[in-house]
Amino acid sequence: MYGPGDVRVEDRPEPTILKPTDAIIRLSATCICGSDLWPYRGADSVDEPIAMGHEYAGIVEEVGSEVSNISPGQFVVGSFFASDNTCEICRAGYQTSCIHREVLGTSGGAQAQRMRVPLADGTLVATPEVPPDDLVPDFLAASDVLGTGWFGAVAADAGPGKTVAVVGDGAVGLCAVLAAQQLGAERIIAMSRHESRQRLAREFGATDIVTERGENGVEQIKALTNGLGAHSVVEAVGTQESMMQAIRSTRPGGHVGYVGVSHDVNLSGDDLFMSHVHLHGGPAPVRRFLPDLMDRIWNRKINPAKVFDLELPLDEAADGYRAMDSRHAIKVLLRP
Amino acid sequence: MYGPGDVRVEDRPEPTILKPTDAIIRLSATCICGSDLWPYRGADSVDEPIAMGHEYAGIVEEVGSEVSNISPGQFVVGSFFASDNTCEICRAGYQTSCIHREVLGTSGGAQAQRMRVPLADGTLVATPEVPPDDLVPDFLAASDVLGTGWFGAVAADAGPGKTVAVVGDGAVGLCAVLAAQQLGAERIIAMSRHESRQRLAREFGATDIVTERGENGVEQIKALTNGLGAHSVVEAVGTQESMMQAIRSTRPGGHVGYVGVSHDVNLSGDDLFMSHVHLHGGPAPVRRFLPDLMDRIWNRKINPAKVFDLELPLDEAADGYRAMDSRHAIKVLLRP
Repeated sequence: MYGPGDVRVEDRPEPTILKPTDAIIRLSATCICGSDLWPYRGADSVDEPIAMGHEYAGIVEEVGSEVSNISPGQFVVGSFFASDNTCEICRAGYQTSCIHREVLGTSGGAQAQRMRVPLADGTLVATPEVPPDDLVPDFLAASDVLGTGWFGAVAADAGPGKTVAVVGDGAVGLCAVLAAQQLGAERIIAMSRHESRQRLAREFGATDIVTERGENGVEQIKALTNGLGAHSVVEAVGTQESMMQAIRSTRPGGHVGYVGVSHDVNLSGDDLFMSHVHLHGGPAPVRRFLPDLMDRIWNRKINPAKVFDLELPLDEAADGYRAMDSRHAIKVLLRP
Repeated sequence: MYGPGDVRVEDRPEPTILKPTDAIIRLSATCICGSDLWPYRGADSVDEPIAMGHEYAGIVEEVGSEVSNISPGQFVVGSFFASDNTCEICRAGYQTSCIHREVLGTSGGAQAQRMRVPLADGTLVATPEVPPDDLVPDFLAASDVLGTGWFGAVAADAGPGKTVAVVGDGAVGLCAVLAAQQLGAERIIAMSRHESRQRLAREFGATDIVTERGENGVEQIKALTNGLGAHSVVEAVGTQESMMQAIRSTRPGGHVGYVGVSHDVNLSGDDLFMSHVHLHGGPAPVRRFLPDLMDRIWNRKINPAKVFDLELPLDEAADGYRAMDSRHAIKVLLRP
C-alpha cells in the first residue's frame, strides 16, 4: 500500500530464514482484513509503502534449525502476532501480548506468495494432514476473523442461557455470531442494516436482527431483553459510537467483549462506573483458540469461509480493497 | 452538609414509614465515608443542605405492613442502595443496579439516630442474635467499606496463586487487602505512603508495600512481578491518575477491579485495547456479599473495624470530617 486508496501488486524479495526459529510458508490462500481498510481510508497514516496482509494458511517450505514442532510439507495456520506460546502471558492465553511477540508482516505481508513466520514453533498450528482444497478458506478464516470473533464472544462471556448482541456486521462480527452459536448462547441478536449480511448472520445462528444504530439500536436491544440489556455484547467495529452502543446495550453485571481495533475511542470513567459492565478485549489471542477452531473446521462442524463472498487472484488485490471499501464484499479471499 | 467544609449536626424530623416495604432502624453506629469527602472538598457541588451518611447498622424499630423477613428488635446491616433482591439484576448479584433501587439517605442520611430503609426485605440482613457491643463497628464496616473492598477484590479476580495490588490506602483499599487475604491471594501489594496505613495493610495481609505513585509505582509493581504486572489490581481512589496506575500495573489478561467513585476519569480506548486487561467495577453490590461477610464477623474471623481509628459522638461529626479530610484519621465512627 503506497497510500490511501493506492494498492499495488509488485515483485518483492523472496522471504528467507532470518532466525533459527523462523519458518517460510507458501500461502495456499490469503485475504484482506477489515483493519487493512483503516490505512486504505486514510484513518491510519501511510508514511512509506507497506507490505500488507496478516492472515495466512499454507504449506511449510522451510524451517530454521531450532524449529521442532513444525516441518516442511505440513499445512499450517497462524495468527497475526507471532508468539513463543511458552511465556507466562502465553500460558495464560494472551499470546497477542507474548513477551516475545512479533507483528507479522513487518518483513513482508501475508498478501503474498510466500512469507516468513517468526517463532514458528509457538505460532503455527498444523492440521493432521494436508486438508482438501475446499477447506482451505475455512482454515484461512481461522487465522484472524474467526479467532477474533471467537475471542469477542468469549470475552463477552457468551454461553448457555445468555442473550448475546453483536455490534458490527463485518466478517469479525459475523464470526462472533457463529462463535456465540457454537458456545451455546440462547439468543443471538445481530445488529446489521445490510440484507446480505443479515442473511449470513442468520445462517451463522442469529435469532434476531436489529437494524437501528446508536441510541435507537440500544433501545431495540432493551426492548428485546425486558428493558435490561443483553448479557453479552460483542463490539466488532472500533469507533466511539459502536463502543458506546455496545456498553449501553449491556445489562448491569453483563459483559462487553471488544475486538474492533479501537480508533480515537474515549470512555468516560463516570459512565463506565455506573454501567456496571465487565469490559474485556484487545488484540484477539487467536493462538489460544486455533487448535479447537481447526478441529471444528477439520471435522466440518463450522463453515466460517462463508464470510468470503469474493475471491480474486492475488494480482487483482487492488480490486479486492475497492470491493471491501465500498462494502460490495464482506471479505475478499486472494489466491496467490 | 451546607457546603464545602461546612458540616452541622441539627435536629431533623423523625423518619417515618412512608411505604409498606419500609423499615425504621435506630442506629447503633454510623460513620463517615471517603466519598463524603468529595462534596466536603467541593469536588461535588452542594446546592442545598444535604443529610449525610449511607453506612448503617442498628436495631429495627418498626416495619411496614409488607415487610416479612425483618422484624423489630433485630440487629441489621444494609448497603447504601436499597434493592428488592428479587429482580433479575439482583439475582445476578448486582443489587446496586436493582431495577427498583433507591439511594439511601434521600429522606434523611445515616449520620443520624434513626433512619428509614426502603425495600427492607431485600436490603437488610439480620444477625442470628443481637451481637455483643464490641462487634458493632465490624458490622458497620460491612455496610460499605468492607463490602466495597471485597467487591473490588472479587472484580479483580483475586484468589489463590494470584498477586494482587491495591491502589489507594483509604478504608476501602485496606478492606480490599483484607478481602484478597481472605480470598487466598498468594501475594498482596499495598500501595501506600502513610506509615499507619501501611501497618494496618500488613495486619490485614499485605505482603509488600509500594510507596511510589504513578509511573514509578507501576515500575515498582512490575519489578515485583517479573516485569509482567500484577494478576489482579484493585483501584480504590477514583481519579485519573489512580485508574491509569491500576490499569498499567496489571499484566495482559489480568483483572482491574475499580471501586473508587470515578471523578472526571477518561480512558483512552486505544490504550485500553492494547492493555489487554479485564475491567470491572462500579458501585459495589455490597448486598451480594453481606451474608458471607456478616458470618465471618459473627464468627470473629475478620476484624474490619480496625479501619476506624477515631470514634466520636455524632454531635462532633464536624470534627470527624476535618480529621478525615486532613488524613489524620483513616475512617471515623460516629456514636449516635
